[in-house]
Amino acid sequence: MALRSDIAWSTADQIGVFGYDLVRELIGKVSLGDMGFLEIVGRLPNKRESRMFEAMLVTLVEHGIVPSSLATRLTHTGAPEALQASVAAGLLGLGSVFVGSIEGVAKMLSAALVDAEPSVAIANEIVSAQRVVPGLGHPIHKPFDPRARKLFAIARATGFHGPYVELMRLVSRRAGKRAGRPLPINATGAIGAICCEMKLPPEACRGIGVMARAVGLVGHALEEMRQPIAREVWHRVEEEATAHARGKLRKK
Amino acid sequence: MALRSDIAWSTADQIGVFGYDLVRELIGKVSLGDMGFLEIVGRLPNKRESRMFEAMLVTLVEHGIVPSSLATRLTHTGAPEALQASVAAGLLGLGSVFVGSIEGVAKMLSAALVDAEPSVAIANEIVSAQRVVPGLGHPIHKPFDPRARKLFAIARATGFHGPYVELMRLVSRRAGKRAGRPLPINATGAIGAICCEMKLPPEACRGIGVMARAVGLVGHALEEMRQPIAREVWHRVEEEATAHARGKLRKK
Amino acid sequence: MALRSDIAWSTADQIGVFGYDLVRELIGKVSLGDMGFLEIVGRLPNKRESRMFEAMLVTLVEHGIVPSSLATRLTHTGAPEALQASVAAGLLGLGSVFVGSIEGVAKMLSAALVDAEPSVAIANEIVSAQRVVPGLGHPIHKPFDPRARKLFAIARATGFHGPYVELMRLVSRRAGKRAGRPLPINATGAIGAICCEMKLPPEACRGIGVMARAVGLVGHALEEMRQPIAREVWHRVEEEATAHARGKLRKK
Amino acid sequence: MALRSDIAWSTADQIGVFGYDLVRELIGKVSLGDMGFLEIVGRLPNKRESRMFEAMLVTLVEHGIVPSSLATRLTHTGAPEALQASVAAGLLGLGSVFVGSIEGVAKMLSAALVDAEPSVAIANEIVSAQRVVPGLGHPIHKPFDPRARKLFAIARATGFHGPYVELMRLVSRRAGKRAGRPLPINATGAIGAICCEMKLPPEACRGIGVMARAVGLVGHALEEMRQPIAREVWHRVEEEATAHARGKLRKK
Repeated sequence: MALRSDIAWSTADQIGVFGYDLVRELIGKVSLGDMGFLEIVGRLPNKRESRMFEAMLVTLVEHGIVPSSLATRLTHTGAPEALQASVAAGLLGLGSVFVGSIEGVAKMLSAALVDAEPSVAIANEIVSAQRVVPGLGHPIHKPFDPRARKLFAIARATGFHGPYVELMRLVSRRAGKRAGRPLPINATGAIGAICCEMKLPPEACRGIGVMARAVGLVGHALEEMRQPIAREVWHRVEEEATAHARGKLRKK
Repeated sequence: MALRSDIAWSTADQIGVFGYDLVRELIGKVSLGDMGFLEIVGRLPNKRESRMFEAMLVTLVEHGIVPSSLATRLTHTGAPEALQASVAAGLLGLGSVFVGSIEGVAKMLSAALVDAEPSVAIANEIVSAQRVVPGLGHPIHKPFDPRARKLFAIARATGFHGPYVELMRLVSRRAGKRAGRPLPINATGAIGAICCEMKLPPEACRGIGVMARAVGLVGHALEEMRQPIAREVWHRVEEEATAHARGKLRKK
Repeated sequence: MALRSDIAWSTADQIGVFGYDLVRELIGKVSLGDMGFLEIVGRLPNKRESRMFEAMLVTLVEHGIVPSSLATRLTHTGAPEALQASVAAGLLGLGSVFVGSIEGVAKMLSAALVDAEPSVAIANEIVSAQRVVPGLGHPIHKPFDPRARKLFAIARATGFHGPYVELMRLVSRRAGKRAGRPLPINATGAIGAICCEMKLPPEACRGIGVMARAVGLVGHALEEMRQPIAREVWHRVEEEATAHARGKLRKK
Repeated sequence: MALRSDIAWSTADQIGVFGYDLVRELIGKVSLGDMGFLEIVGRLPNKRESRMFEAMLVTLVEHGIVPSSLATRLTHTGAPEALQASVAAGLLGLGSVFVGSIEGVAKMLSAALVDAEPSVAIANEIVSAQRVVPGLGHPIHKPFDPRARKLFAIARATGFHGPYVELMRLVSRRAGKRAGRPLPINATGAIGAICCEMKLPPEACRGIGVMARAVGLVGHALEEMRQPIAREVWHRVEEEATAHARGKLRKK
C-alpha cells in the first residue's frame, strides 16, 4: 500500500497546505481559526463560515478552573520544563463527558434528519430513546446558557440557523417537559447543532473543542508559573483525603 | 495560602475571561488567535498585534508529515475513540528540539539586549558562546526560509521590526561566516525574534507553538480516519527493523 | 462532600499503602507485579495469584515495533529531555483496538456467566451477537498463539482454569466454524478470560495492559537514544506520502 | 539508513525479547520487575540484581495523593472511557521536580567518581557547586526517610552498597552542615546512588520512576471510579480561586 497524505508538502522555496501556498496565501492573510476550518474541511472558509466557526472556537477556549485546567496546572508542578506536556495532560480529559457531548449532539441530530424534517414527533423519539439527552441543561447557567443564545444569534446572522438548530430546540422543550424543569440548550448543544448546519463531520466536533481548549490551557500553564495554586491544592487534598487512615495499618 | 486564579469566572448569566464579558465582548467579536494573545498577555491585542500574532500562529499550524503528526496518527490506530489523546500524543513531541527552539531564540536575544543595542560585537559573542545557534538554517528551505521573509515583511508593516530582529540578522550573518555557508534565519528564529519585539515572555513562545500545532494535529487525526497510513508505516518498520534478528535467540 | 482516598498515607516515620507498612512489609518483600495486584485488588496476592498475575503482565510488556512503541520513539525525537512524555505518548494508543480487547473479552465472558454454566448454546449466542469476537485470531501467530497456550498451562497449574476459560474455548471453536478457518484464542483473549477467573473487575483489565506496556515503552525510549530510527521513519514517510502533491497548488 | 531494533521480533510460533524466548524463558518464569531490568540493561538480572531492582521499583509505585495521581483522577472525570489517558496524564508530571531528581543524583555521583574515590573533598565540591543538592531532605519524613534506610539495608545485603552510596552519605553530611539542619538522604537520593552501584545508565533512572508510577496511577484511576474525589476538588478550587473576581468586568 502506498503512503499518501494530502495535507501539506515542502520544497526548497514553497510550502503547500491543502493546496494553498502557505507563504503567499495563508500567512498574514488568514487567521488561526480559518486554519482550523481548513484542517477540518480541506478548504478555506468563506466570510460567513469564518465568522461562525471563530465564534464556536472562542466559546470553547476558556472555562476557568475545570478538571482539564487543573490537570495542566498539576502537571506543571512536576515538569515545569515541559509546557507542551502540561497542555497535553489537560487535553486528555476532553473525552466523552465534556467536549465529547458536542459530538454526541451532532451525531444525534444528523442521524435524525438523514431524510426527514425536524418535527415534534422526531424530538419525542430522540428524548424517549435516552435517559440523558446531551447538550441540554447547565449546573450554573440558569435559566438559560448565554453562550448558546449568542451562538444562535450569530447563526441567524450568518445563515447557519436551520433544521438542526430547530430540532435541537424541539428536543430541549420535550426533554424539559419530561424533567419537569427547563432544560435549555447549553453551549455544547448549540455548537453540536451548528456543526451540523455547517456540514462539518460529527467526528470533527471534538476536534473543535480540542483546538480551542489547547489555546486556553496554555494560559493556565502560564498563570501557574506566575501565580501557582497546584501545590496548595495537592497539600490540602492529601491532608483531608488521608486523615482518616493516617497511622492505621491492617492487623495481621 | 488562598487559591486564586485571575483567568475566568462564571455566574448564572455571565462569564468573565480576563475581565472581558465572554458573551458580549468576545464571542462573535474576536478570533481564536486573539484569544491566544489574551491568554498569554492578559488583554486583547490591538490591530497591529492581532495581525502579527495571527501570522506567527498560522506559520506554525502545519508542517505535514513530521514526528508529531506521525505520533498523532499512530495513536489514532490504537485509540480511534479518543481524538483528544491522538492530538495530545502529537503535542508531547513539541519539546526542546522543534518548538523549543523558539524559546531558545527569545531567551538568547532578550538576554543580550537587556541594556544594550544590537551590534556586531554582541552577535559575535552570541555565536561564539554556542556550537549551534538556535533559529538558523533549514534542511529543506534553501537558500532562505520563505516563511521568515514573510514574517519579517509583516513585522515591518505592523511596527514589530526592531532591535531583536536586527540582532538576529547580525547573528545569522556571523554564524554563516563561521560555518562557511549561509545560515539564514528560519521560521522559528523569526518567531522568536518577533516575540521579543512584541514583549511576549520567552516562556510563552513554546505556548504559541502548542496552540498552533494543536490545530494542525486535529487535521492529521481526521485525515488518518479517512485515509489511514499509520498501520502501513508500522508494518513496514517492524518488518525491516527486526528482520536481522528474527528467529535468533541467545545461546545458553 | 468529604474527600477520601484509601490508597496511601504518610507520617514522619511511616508510609501506609492499602494498609501495609511500605517499608516493613513491601519494600524488599514483594515485587512490582505484586504491587500491581495490590493496586487493583486492594490486598497482596497469594502465591498462586502472584504467579498467574506476573505471567499475564510479562506477556504484555513487549511487542517490539508496534504503533505505541513508534509513537514513543517519535516523541523522543522532539522532546529527548522528557522520557516520561515519550512513554505517555505510547500509552495513549492503548485504546479500544489493542489493549481494550482484553476488557472486551472480560466483559463478554462475565456477562454471559452471571448465572449460567459455560455451554455450546451460550457460545453460539455470543458469536451470533457480534461480527468480530474479541480475543480470537492473530495475523502472525498461526495456527495458534503460543502465549495463550502458555498462559492456560499456568492457569491450570495455579487453579485459574475454570468456566470462563472453558467458555472462551467454546467461543473460539464456534467462531472458527463460522469463519471457515481456525480462530484460536490469542494472548488478549487468554488474559481476558483469566482475569475473570481471578475475579478482577473488567475495568481493571486495561490497567494490566497499561502497567505492562509502560515497562516496555521505557525500553523503546532508551533504545531510541542509543540507536535512533524515528528520524529515518519520518523522512521516508514524508518523502513518499507527499510526493504526489509536491509543487502542486490549487488553481484560483 | 537501515532501520534496526534489537528489542523484539515475532514469527508464527515464537517471540523473541532481547534474545530470550518470551514463551519458554520469560512468561511464568520472571517477574514484571525483571522485565523492567531487561528493558533497561538488555539481559535478565541475577538474583541479587533482581532483589535490589524490585525494591527500588516498589518504593516508587505509590505516594498517595500527589500532583500526578490528582492529574490522573481529574482526567478520569472527563474521559472515563480512556483509562490509558488518565494514567498518561499522571505520568506527564514526572519531570525535573520529582522523579527527575533520581537522574540528577545519578549524574552528580557518576560524574564525581569517574576516576576518583569518594572523599570529603569531593563531597564538599559537590555541595559548593549547587544551591540545592538533589536527593536530600524531605518535607514529611524527618529526621530521616525510612525508605532510604531500608533501601540501603537491601543494598548491603545484595552487594550494592559501595562508593556511590558512600559519597552520597558524605554529601548529605556536608549539605546538612551548610544548612545548619540535618539533610538526610531521601528515597530518590538512595535510588539514584544505588542505580550507580548497579551500573544503570543515568538516563534510565527516570525510566524506573515511570515504570513504577504507571502501576500506582492505575490504582488511582480505579479508586476514582469507585470513590470519586476529582469533581469535589474541582468545585472547591473553582469556588475559592475565582470568588475574588466573580461578577467583575474591566471598565472600558
